[in-house]
Amino acid sequence: VTSGQDAASGVATRGVGVVDDRLEDIALLLDLVRTGRAKTRTELSRRSGLSRKVLGQRLGDLLTHGLVTEGDLAPSTGGRAPRELAFRGDAGAVLVAQFGATGMGIGIADLTGTVLRRHHEPLDIAVGPDCALGRAEELFDRMLGERGDDAPPIWGVGLGVPGPVEFDSGTPIAPPIMPGWDGYPVRNRLAQRFGVPTWLDNDVNLMALGELRAGLARGQDNVVYMKVGTGIGAGLVSRGRLHRGANGTAGDVGHVAVRSDHPALCRCGKIDCLEAHAGGAALARDATTAAQEGTSAFLAARLAEHGPLHARDIADAAAAGDAVAISLLTRSGRLVGETLATLVNFFNPSTIIIGGRVTTTSDLVLAAVRQAVYRQSLPLATRDLHIAQSVNSAEIGLVGAAFMVVDELFDAPVLARWIGDGSPAGRPELSTAA
Amino acid sequence: VTSGQDAASGVATRGVGVVDDRLEDIALLLDLVRTGRAKTRTELSRRSGLSRKVLGQRLGDLLTHGLVTEGDLAPSTGGRAPRELAFRGDAGAVLVAQFGATGMGIGIADLTGTVLRRHHEPLDIAVGPDCALGRAEELFDRMLGERGDDAPPIWGVGLGVPGPVEFDSGTPIAPPIMPGWDGYPVRNRLAQRFGVPTWLDNDVNLMALGELRAGLARGQDNVVYMKVGTGIGAGLVSRGRLHRGANGTAGDVGHVAVRSDHPALCRCGKIDCLEAHAGGAALARDATTAAQEGTSAFLAARLAEHGPLHARDIADAAAAGDAVAISLLTRSGRLVGETLATLVNFFNPSTIIIGGRVTTTSDLVLAAVRQAVYRQSLPLATRDLHIAQSVNSAEIGLVGAAFMVVDELFDAPVLARWIGDGSPAGRPELSTAA
Repeated sequence: VTSGQDAASGVATRGVGVVDDRLEDIALLLDLVRTGRAKTRTELSRRSGLSRKVLGQRLGDLLTHGLVTEGDLAPSTGGRAPRELAFRGDAGAVLVAQFGATGMGIGIADLTGTVLRRHHEPLDIAVGPDCALGRAEELFDRMLGERGDDAPPIWGVGLGVPGPVEFDSGTPIAPPIMPGWDGYPVRNRLAQRFGVPTWLDNDVNLMALGELRAGLARGQDNVVYMKVGTGIGAGLVSRGRLHRGANGTAGDVGHVAVRSDHPALCRCGKIDCLEAHAGGAALARDATTAAQEGTSAFLAARLAEHGPLHARDIADAAAAGDAVAISLLTRSGRLVGETLATLVNFFNPSTIIIGGRVTTTSDLVLAAVRQAVYRQSLPLATRDLHIAQSVNSAEIGLVGAAFMVVDELFDAPVLARWIGDGSPAGRPELSTAA
Repeated sequence: VTSGQDAASGVATRGVGVVDDRLEDIALLLDLVRTGRAKTRTELSRRSGLSRKVLGQRLGDLLTHGLVTEGDLAPSTGGRAPRELAFRGDAGAVLVAQFGATGMGIGIADLTGTVLRRHHEPLDIAVGPDCALGRAEELFDRMLGERGDDAPPIWGVGLGVPGPVEFDSGTPIAPPIMPGWDGYPVRNRLAQRFGVPTWLDNDVNLMALGELRAGLARGQDNVVYMKVGTGIGAGLVSRGRLHRGANGTAGDVGHVAVRSDHPALCRCGKIDCLEAHAGGAALARDATTAAQEGTSAFLAARLAEHGPLHARDIADAAAAGDAVAISLLTRSGRLVGETLATLVNFFNPSTIIIGGRVTTTSDLVLAAVRQAVYRQSLPLATRDLHIAQSVNSAEIGLVGAAFMVVDELFDAPVLARWIGDGSPAGRPELSTAA
């Protein structure tokens, strides 16, 4: 079992300061096989520029470590039929967790980003890092215990939180809705707990990454993912990679000022933030007012029967033709759409994906978003613009967390941990004990 | 002399469909030397992962073609002192041109992005592509004629225009202030005229690139360049590379709606665009009104003496304490700053550079921009934000145009043209005749 102490601050401390050419080669080969760009030794050789001899040695390392298999005969192009190389997605597994403002999801994914086990439960992010991370660790332990003895080892942890993150250090920085989390060493804690490399990013960035690598934005270069849940935030993709910005705050659109006919106090302390008018909490607040003031019989009945109102109740009311609910959802979509229109003018994405609980409960929101974007954006910027609703916005963040880990793991310097010393013992084993 | 006909659509048509490993190696080596990351054969070998033998062959190609020289003895680290490798910036030259709304600059730069000769003159972009490009070609011819017989050959042309550009095809698309340019084959025309590869981009993107590679933003990953001239536009840099967006319209902020106490018609046909209130033409319009209505004695006198007012006149008036001029420049800076504040929240740059004629004539604009950005952006997004004024905003676009060409030229597929056949004859010669 590797020591957790130095796993904390990443991998460079593990004595792999300099990455040699061999590891760069291996990382390249693995990437070519993993992404399906090369399926045979001949293709690998051509794509990598490595000689047959060197290629054989490097590929041998990957085969030895079980990351690649050389299996079925590929279709012959004349001459001896080549054997097909495949990435072994089940060689390892990844622990993934997504914290939202009011709920968390955790799971175990394989190395292809497929989530194999999952669990969602309510959790107020404001309980602070000790409670929230402690609960996630507990759930991870339970989930790991449910696996068979022959389950693949855990190779990394990927986490998302609803606030700005300094990606290089794996810590939240000045998150407006996460009291107690500012500067908390999230990466270090999880890396020590499970003895494997850990990465942390903003939750919406991970949703954007999930859609980019395995969802509706696959193959796109310029993407905006807009999450409208309790909070509101965007994840930006430029040239096929996440744009995090200088302080990890890129896409932080929840607290942009919007025009409104009545002032609303935001939980961040400012007035008339987008979130304070269009987010899930704002909708619940306005729906409750309508129920109490008697302007919506449907919502009043729901409030009396089931207690505090949620996005789901407003969607149900709208579906039943309740005018107040329809107006609330349409207004939320319009305000989100107006902010998106500005983003479209600035960023010119080819794809916008809308996710989060508020948007997925009712088609009204997507319709209002589309209308506002197409009305207020520059015509050229919307010429080929595609606006879609996330198919599975609860899960896509976990998928993104898995891809974050796998992409980082198979970067040459990190790969060095596994196969740097040329022996399988270099691969970390799972430490579930604290 | 190479035929211009197929140079038009780029380089792939020249029979270099597949780029082999040798050229990829050569492009990598050239890049390492050119950017100063490797100065000796030993460093090149380590950085490139090539064996000494292969490295020797590839470097031989670069030496033969005069792109790299092996010169002075580098400091010895024990053993035989290695010779220092250097990129030959004077091996070739690049024709560069920047078209603004009301003026153009042309020049000749070397392969390090240094502008060696330059010329600026007024030109209304609305005269259309035939007139504008014809004039540029005429000026290029004259400038080329002034060079000595031993001047290096021209290897490429780089152009900037004040509107959206489809980068891959080198054509303007639906530019709001460039009648007659929509879809015009700018790249094809120049490539045929001069028989060399040609690239076209938005003018502000090239200013951003110039600052990124050789100016105030050197080494930064997240940059916004904001140009406030006759028109207004921004160039965005994400992860150290230009973010152009899906249709080349990223950073098109001139026609974003702003709040205003009096409506203003924009030349794009809409009301209350940022440009219609804060751009150079808007300032000249408002200054002329003030002069005619007698609210500014300074501007009235200037109008009577010198005719139509320009940004320079307003700056002079402000410097002389004229209240109307001060108010106009401050309002322009405030409106630009408010738009930038939104961009800061979305994009989270580490550096904003302000350029263009309106900002460089008076410090009032920069001061007002700074005030608005720091007041209206999220605190975390401005924690380390640096806002600076472009030092030489008339020239930086030419520098950017040169880097665009050189960066693209030394990409492997294009490099193939020069050294693909292993003989110096592969290098194009200059055709100045039409």
